[in-house]
Amino acid sequence: MDFLLDAFGPVPLAGGSRAELMSSGIRWAAAKIGEPGVGDAFAGVFSDAVSDPALREILATRFQDPYRLALQDALGEPENRVLFYIDVVVGTLLHRMGMTGGPMADADVTALVEMVLAHFGDGAGPA
Amino acid sequence: MDFLLDAFGPVPLAGGSRAELMSSGIRWAAAKIGEPGVGDAFAGVFSDAVSDPALREILATRFQDPYRLALQDALGEPENRVLFYIDVVVGTLLHRMGMTGGPMADADVTALVEMVLAHFGDGAGPA
Repeated sequence: MDFLLDAFGPVPLAGGSRAELMSSGIRWAAAKIGEPGVGDAFAGVFSDAVSDPALREILATRFQDPYRLALQDALGEPENRVLFYIDVVVGTLLHRMGMTGGPMADADVTALVEMVLAHFGDGAGPA
Repeated sequence: MDFLLDAFGPVPLAGGSRAELMSSGIRWAAAKIGEPGVGDAFAGVFSDAVSDPALREILATRFQDPYRLALQDALGEPENRVLFYIDVVVGTLLHRMGMTGGPMADADVTALVEMVLAHFGDGAGPA
């Protein structure tokens, strides 16, 4: 867990528009998960968490909550929409890593950005 | 692996339109991953695969390829688009299971269906 916390650090939320903010966040997550060792460690912790409630609690509070709260604030979206956003972005990137052993190609990251922006672009939050 | 192969079985592709086919496939995957023991087993195998090339090969050929080929045929989409579709659907559902210990709520599965249909609905394949 500490390795993951150190490897990821704070989410960069410097983008201007809502679209820039989401796009840069997705590309940042793709780059982090693609770093040597990070995807492995992430997938391992995450998989253990499926059957370990205490680990899930730590993952949710120490790892995910800071990102979730920062995103809720930056995007003006409620908790359930931000949790869905995180599931889609991180889940997709980890699944590709698990199936291929390598990070997602840029063209597919771009497709992910486009799909997510189309879904969240006209959300309830600030444009 | 054999447990997973038995638990999932063939993907149901009986839907009429492209939208019905994708929608029913996503709801089928959500129900399967939500069955007791299946999500755990899936996440475990999947996580081990990140650092085990031989297991990845088995996962890709014995488990994923039959779904991939059936979807390419049914949707008229190329391999890279179908792989992306599988990453999004399965990755999102597994991430939710890993973070909460339970299956995704119906409202979020519906959001996933809407997001995926908007992205793939006007794809290159047959409408």
